[in-house]
Amino acid sequence: MGTSEAVLHVLSGDVPQFLSSDMCSSNSDLVFYSKCHIKSVKKKGSRCLPSLKCSSMLGCQIGSYRCKRLGGGLHGNTAIDRLTLLRCKCQQAESASGVDTGEGNGAWFVDNAKKLNLNGSMNSEDILEFKTVEQLKRENEVSMSNCKVGTGTNAIFTGGVDSVEDEAWELLRASMVYYCGSPVGTIAANDPTSSNVLNYDQVFIRDFIPSGIAFLLKGEYDIVRNFILHTLQLQSWEKTMDCHSPGQGLMPASFKVRTVPLDGDDSATEVLDPDFGEAAIGRVAPVDSGLWWIILLRAYGKCSDDLSVQERVDVQTGIKMILRLCLADGFDMFPTLLVTDGSCMIDRRMGIHGHPLEIQALFYSALLCAREMLTPGDGSADLIRALNNRLVALSFHIREYYWIDMRKLNEIYRYKTEEYSYDAVNKFNIYPDQISPWLVEWMPNKGGYLIGNLQPAHMDFRFFSLGNLWAVVSGLATIDQSHAILDLIEAKWADLVAEMPFKICYPALEGQEWQLITGCDPKNTPWSYHNAGSWPTLLWQLTVACMKMNRPEIAAKAVSVAEKRISKDKWPEYYDTKKARFIGKQSRLFQTWSIAGFLVAKLLLADPNAVKILTTEEDSELVNAFSCMISANPRRKRGPKRSKQTYIV
Amino acid sequence: MGTSEAVLHVLSGDVPQFLSSDMCSSNSDLVFYSKCHIKSVKKKGSRCLPSLKCSSMLGCQIGSYRCKRLGGGLHGNTAIDRLTLLRCKCQQAESASGVDTGEGNGAWFVDNAKKLNLNGSMNSEDILEFKTVEQLKRENEVSMSNCKVGTGTNAIFTGGVDSVEDEAWELLRASMVYYCGSPVGTIAANDPTSSNVLNYDQVFIRDFIPSGIAFLLKGEYDIVRNFILHTLQLQSWEKTMDCHSPGQGLMPASFKVRTVPLDGDDSATEVLDPDFGEAAIGRVAPVDSGLWWIILLRAYGKCSDDLSVQERVDVQTGIKMILRLCLADGFDMFPTLLVTDGSCMIDRRMGIHGHPLEIQALFYSALLCAREMLTPGDGSADLIRALNNRLVALSFHIREYYWIDMRKLNEIYRYKTEEYSYDAVNKFNIYPDQISPWLVEWMPNKGGYLIGNLQPAHMDFRFFSLGNLWAVVSGLATIDQSHAILDLIEAKWADLVAEMPFKICYPALEGQEWQLITGCDPKNTPWSYHNAGSWPTLLWQLTVACMKMNRPEIAAKAVSVAEKRISKDKWPEYYDTKKARFIGKQSRLFQTWSIAGFLVAKLLLADPNAVKILTTEEDSELVNAFSCMISANPRRKRGPKRSKQTYIV
Repeated sequence: MGTSEAVLHVLSGDVPQFLSSDMCSSNSDLVFYSKCHIKSVKKKGSRCLPSLKCSSMLGCQIGSYRCKRLGGGLHGNTAIDRLTLLRCKCQQAESASGVDTGEGNGAWFVDNAKKLNLNGSMNSEDILEFKTVEQLKRENEVSMSNCKVGTGTNAIFTGGVDSVEDEAWELLRASMVYYCGSPVGTIAANDPTSSNVLNYDQVFIRDFIPSGIAFLLKGEYDIVRNFILHTLQLQSWEKTMDCHSPGQGLMPASFKVRTVPLDGDDSATEVLDPDFGEAAIGRVAPVDSGLWWIILLRAYGKCSDDLSVQERVDVQTGIKMILRLCLADGFDMFPTLLVTDGSCMIDRRMGIHGHPLEIQALFYSALLCAREMLTPGDGSADLIRALNNRLVALSFHIREYYWIDMRKLNEIYRYKTEEYSYDAVNKFNIYPDQISPWLVEWMPNKGGYLIGNLQPAHMDFRFFSLGNLWAVVSGLATIDQSHAILDLIEAKWADLVAEMPFKICYPALEGQEWQLITGCDPKNTPWSYHNAGSWPTLLWQLTVACMKMNRPEIAAKAVSVAEKRISKDKWPEYYDTKKARFIGKQSRLFQTWSIAGFLVAKLLLADPNAVKILTTEEDSELVNAFSCMISANPRRKRGPKRSKQTYIV
Repeated sequence: MGTSEAVLHVLSGDVPQFLSSDMCSSNSDLVFYSKCHIKSVKKKGSRCLPSLKCSSMLGCQIGSYRCKRLGGGLHGNTAIDRLTLLRCKCQQAESASGVDTGEGNGAWFVDNAKKLNLNGSMNSEDILEFKTVEQLKRENEVSMSNCKVGTGTNAIFTGGVDSVEDEAWELLRASMVYYCGSPVGTIAANDPTSSNVLNYDQVFIRDFIPSGIAFLLKGEYDIVRNFILHTLQLQSWEKTMDCHSPGQGLMPASFKVRTVPLDGDDSATEVLDPDFGEAAIGRVAPVDSGLWWIILLRAYGKCSDDLSVQERVDVQTGIKMILRLCLADGFDMFPTLLVTDGSCMIDRRMGIHGHPLEIQALFYSALLCAREMLTPGDGSADLIRALNNRLVALSFHIREYYWIDMRKLNEIYRYKTEEYSYDAVNKFNIYPDQISPWLVEWMPNKGGYLIGNLQPAHMDFRFFSLGNLWAVVSGLATIDQSHAILDLIEAKWADLVAEMPFKICYPALEGQEWQLITGCDPKNTPWSYHNAGSWPTLLWQLTVACMKMNRPEIAAKAVSVAEKRISKDKWPEYYDTKKARFIGKQSRLFQTWSIAGFLVAKLLLADPNAVKILTTEEDSELVNAFSCMISANPRRKRGPKRSKQTYIV
């Protein structure tokens, strides 16, 4: 059994919460519990934080790996550099496939059950330490007391389905990270074949979102609740690069559970150590983290019916801090958020500085979600007014200026330039020569999309998937535009899905364009990674968008493409080549959000109603404000605020 | 005399204030005054603002053109589309050359006096209207009452020098714009050969700075005072693009004096109509306007000894509004200001989005200037604390990460990449392949400079002149770095000065780089305009930098290069080609800031002490804070702000 000899076969205390509460209690006496520590091997050149007196023993726990059916799968690997820590358990309970025969739409749900195949998936040889059984039992009791039953979209427990989904659930649970005994997130990747851990041993905010949604849809709310509340605490940390601190509302990109020895004795304590981009490659601040946090918070409330979290004073404060950061007065003439390159899912230089679509779609979505959750009163009136104004301005700006289809492209192609006036047609002074040859051929007759970025004299015509999909989900795109985006996806299936959904963007930057725009990034070579690589995690956003527009067959088709190989390929982070034929050059295996993304897609296809926890719509109030704005002269009455004032100079 | 027949030869009421107060009063009875209006010809496609009921008659006045010695120069031109309005006067008073034999440094002052040559410089045929003499007299009296004597660096009036400078002064005065009878700025360009006015008939904030400094150095304070107070009023205007309003501290890019008919009768009133980038080509918001405004405000106080302006409550509020906009919490991990492309002197897309050096140098300068001027008390303590923190963080960041010379370049050339840690050497993950071939050859053995921009994985290695010069002036560069910048300018004289000072940046973007980065901008073709064109106005910033470092011979040499042809070439806006051999392709002639820049350079060379109104130094308090910061671990102690807090989750 290789290293699995070192693994105690136990039943976890924090028994999977997709079990009914009955099962939860009836299984509790079967629980045996093990918690294992691994000595971390320090990376070359890395340094512990003196202030934390961080020990070489890390408390980061990756939990609840179910060993049933693993067989010889857990063979040894010499991943000397990995900071893994397993909390293992075996149990008789069958895992759930998450199929819900609820209402309609179940027809295109293609369930290609796969045998579990986990060669080389786990490794913990020689590096395990054990907590005492007493200690584990104590933790177990705490964890048991949290056991809850999901309401709403609670998945039905269906035993005996031995599928890709089962495997995915087992892997997802294995990626759980614990803090003081409670699950607080999922590790970014759990790839035993990789010798270079970099920061894949952290809980990334953006990576956790599909994990969180999957758990919510399974009725397992605690991990999401814990994640929300713990990351909220991190928001108020002091965070600096050299001697500069960014705004206090910033959410970290990621965090890590560290075990820190206490002064004077041998005891230790666990701490959450956030990274705001201070240590990240390239020092990029994660603008999307706070936006996703708000979106997940709303989904938690809608799914669990537990509104007590969003109503908490500290949570309300957290929402407001994020909003203040986003809505702060700026120099910009645009209502879109101005960010630096790489501040979202594409977190390396890819020419998406300025006003990238993904950030704007998440911004819009977060504004609508926050609007739903903000409790009125003491000082939030101004914020809500600013929020409403921004929503209207933002949606107008994106719908009007980011949208292209055949008609609009032909219009741009014929633009006059250098117009100086308030009512210029070519407002941003775009030179038609910027229209790339690929685009002229690529744009389908039916369909359209939102361009990647708009700046003075600059349209980034690349198709960015997440931005477009989330514009559909959030309603930033109009209904017609949303359908046109899906039309385009269907028309360009061979480019955007091909052999693995879903291209992160299209097309790739090549040649000198790659040199100039990525700065010769060897990870972002053409048709790899962020530069038009294919990312399975995007399946979930695709599915939400399709379900919202009542076109689930598109998502189902994409899921079936993924299902053919994703488990065999060991759940890679991304795929390379134009048609996504290869597992990505530096792609991690067992990437958690590839796993979770697949699960969310499956769960949503099975329960179309569940998308409502993620989608937002303009309410009538906003629609009215918007139509007033549009029908009026787009340029408002100008003049000094105090009319007829005599200037005393 | 061509159109000059239509020009009344008069003596201006607002007699030049470089005259002593005695002369001022003794000349007042000689004054004859004329004010002329031109019917504006509406541009194709332009539209008047309905809200302003703007008439086709514009009240914009370009004043005080002295006709003496113009001879046949004022011949007719059919500039049918120009919104010119001349306020003409002739007088016997000789103009001043501005030579001050004060202390030292006068030796390299090369005064190549040139005969006045103004072919085609003015045109007002058929389009003049006249105010009544009574009206003009009234205005004249008002204007006379403002007459003041400069103290401090007041230039000595020296009669009889028939030089390029004389011509420059006459042109500068001719560019003055009046509002309700008082001078409030200078028009951007006064080119009678151009048929397309675009927005060159406006007063640009950034363009006025050298005009303002020239007037200050001449002891003519009123126009600067008026400019400061009127633009301050514009700061609080409602300004929108579509339905979005940028921050309230934003200063406009430019303004225009418009004559607006009053309801119900034939009378009209003048209004100041600002442009915040809403109408500008490409909709770029001018981030530098407010920063320059603060710098000019301090210069006004230091030069005139009149501190009453900066102490005014509305002025203090204006300073604070600008600071709040700059110091507002943001997502960014960098202390540098994040801006969109083209938000400064380079106001078109040129790949200077993000954290361009020019903005950072002006930001640093404005912070130091504001710090000097802010009156303590009611609520400014927090602002001053934030300001001090930012000053230290900003100077550390720029000095450390923007600086390159041979040693640093070789270090970057050998960078390891993909370092994930707090103490990475290659903090921003720069790929050495980004180092362009030109740079390896170009970097001199002696000397160095601050790079144009720094972003995640992105160093813009181009040399940007204004940013480097103003880093010297403001003390953002250390003393050693400042000297090294001047060393580089000397070493690269043939590239940066050549036949006309001074290259705006070096080198040009060419080929595909030009296509991608400028978006195929036909105005910014290689070695033209912003794309490594040469701009005479930069002479003044070069001179301030050289004088500050006590190396005036560099500036004097550059001035002598300019003097050989700038008047003959009719004061163009910019020059083209690698060696600045051609007048720029679309360059305006009689560009006011080319004229004013030349004058400021001359005036400063003549009075080395006067640079003190523009230069700033770190005071001991800041130096101490800075050295504490540097000697300490650059990464501050981390941890939750409330230590040992139990998280209630």
